[in-house]
Amino acid sequence: MKINGEEYRSVWMEGRVVKMIDQRLLPHEFRIFACKTYGDTARAIKDMVIRGAPAIGAAACYGMAQGALAGDVDKATDALSKSRPTAYDLFDAIKFFKSNYRGGAPQEMADAYADASVERCKKIGEVGEKLIKNKARILTHCNAGALACVDYGTALAPIRLAHQKGKKIFVWVDETRPRCQGAKLTAFEMVQEGIPHAVIADNAAGHYMQRGEVDLCIVGTDRVAWNGDIANKIGTYEKAVVAKENSIPFYIATPFSTIDFQCKSGKDIPIEERGEEEILEITGWDGKKVSSLRVAAPGAKARNPSFDVTPAKYITAIITERGIFKPGDIKKL
Amino acid sequence: MKINGEEYRSVWMEGRVVKMIDQRLLPHEFRIFACKTYGDTARAIKDMVIRGAPAIGAAACYGMAQGALAGDVDKATDALSKSRPTAYDLFDAIKFFKSNYRGGAPQEMADAYADASVERCKKIGEVGEKLIKNKARILTHCNAGALACVDYGTALAPIRLAHQKGKKIFVWVDETRPRCQGAKLTAFEMVQEGIPHAVIADNAAGHYMQRGEVDLCIVGTDRVAWNGDIANKIGTYEKAVVAKENSIPFYIATPFSTIDFQCKSGKDIPIEERGEEEILEITGWDGKKVSSLRVAAPGAKARNPSFDVTPAKYITAIITERGIFKPGDIKKL
Repeated sequence: MKINGEEYRSVWMEGRVVKMIDQRLLPHEFRIFACKTYGDTARAIKDMVIRGAPAIGAAACYGMAQGALAGDVDKATDALSKSRPTAYDLFDAIKFFKSNYRGGAPQEMADAYADASVERCKKIGEVGEKLIKNKARILTHCNAGALACVDYGTALAPIRLAHQKGKKIFVWVDETRPRCQGAKLTAFEMVQEGIPHAVIADNAAGHYMQRGEVDLCIVGTDRVAWNGDIANKIGTYEKAVVAKENSIPFYIATPFSTIDFQCKSGKDIPIEERGEEEILEITGWDGKKVSSLRVAAPGAKARNPSFDVTPAKYITAIITERGIFKPGDIKKL
Repeated sequence: MKINGEEYRSVWMEGRVVKMIDQRLLPHEFRIFACKTYGDTARAIKDMVIRGAPAIGAAACYGMAQGALAGDVDKATDALSKSRPTAYDLFDAIKFFKSNYRGGAPQEMADAYADASVERCKKIGEVGEKLIKNKARILTHCNAGALACVDYGTALAPIRLAHQKGKKIFVWVDETRPRCQGAKLTAFEMVQEGIPHAVIADNAAGHYMQRGEVDLCIVGTDRVAWNGDIANKIGTYEKAVVAKENSIPFYIATPFSTIDFQCKSGKDIPIEERGEEEILEITGWDGKKVSSLRVAAPGAKARNPSFDVTPAKYITAIITERGIFKPGDIKKL
């Protein structure tokens, strides 16, 4: 991804040092965070210097390479495994390193892991880019971008590649309350790549669809069920329903590995509910630091579901590195 | 309306003094603002101490009463007319006072105007309350509440009366980005009346509809067209589409005077676009004062339509002080 005109990945290794974009300060400040030891890397993952499952996986793999360089593979495994206990990609990355590393330069092994992750996203981009016509106006929700991956992103990969190929595109960026990953991270990626865009209140997405100013929607997903239902950031369901009502294609972009063949339908996906304070307050940048303000009335109550389920019937197709599938076709795979 | 256990209107008169709830500080601080002269009242309207068309109308009528007491009806007319130049209710109130006041106690005339406004909203409440069953879970968007009127509100009038009649109700309060009138004002009214509620991100409304946790929706409107289309706060259209998809009734509550028989359809209603900063920043309470934080990435662009149009086909009925109308019936009136 391009940042201040330079090419970056979300995480990489230089000598014995693992470097990563410090995502705690984004989008307001851009800083590189350096981890000298596997312990530093584990701590950085824990402290959310880096976030997004594929990005965490790559960081953990680089941490394992640091462990190998220090002759402490077992201790590195232990430290990294404890950093974010629910991240599937993290365990997958550690396992990959331990299964494949047979001595030699450990960075090469971690680079191979990161490269494969980048290739997958790039391929999603190449597959999805064909769906984007010149002058297309694309709506996206939340941030399924390069920052959450090692590079390219998932939903943002087709958008990035369409732009790089010279297609004139325009991106509607849902701000994505409550955590505003659209306004913060997707808008950051759009600004950095020079892609024309407008951040909108989530409420305005339907308005622009109704007026014929949205040609297609592309979003990411946290899980695809066997019947083609998907779970994604809260609000995805609303956008999909209104897109269908206005005959606008609604695409999901995701690595093939997100398809959970054990999960029969969206009803089986548990929906995380987060704290009330994300609704009652809002977080932003006061010019010097990240800070919060109270928005809601004193004494107000709130509910805060993080995800919703979009049934297969609202989804035009699922874009993966292995090709484009109709949601109903997943059962046949 | 009840505030801190006492009954209030948004504006009233005591002797020569016009008093109003200072809405610039709500929901974070509750203060009464006193206007000793018609000039003070005109300034208070201009400075948005009071907002909402019916509330502004009543304030202007009380300002005219102050003008009459001071023997300055013409000067009061001039000062008040200039306070908010686009507010229809303001001119209507001034005209009402001048046409009807024939000497005597001027406060009585202004009270008559305010009382009629209250009666209209109360009647909307009585008509609409019959649509709310015991244990109903009601979704509302933005603030069509007592604060914007003299009392009761429009969309909140049926909710208030259902609660006062002892029905056990629950209100889903869309926070209503970008200006968060739901989280700020509707939630304030719910807290003050003791009505069980939850503020939600606008993105979560569809999720709760899908899960069968919303029984009906009631919103206000800024204009009803001849064909039954309505304009209301941005996001109303999305909620109406998703409500219809889930077979949930979607009601509009409004005074009969909001119906614009000259306006053929929603396409003829101009949509105001406001400044980018309402999207890129957010305003809240820092504990001492109203303050803003930057949310979006530096350099990000935004679009900010304030209203959208909900076509008649998504509207179950329009609740007015003259009864309940199907949107298709307006043509016959």
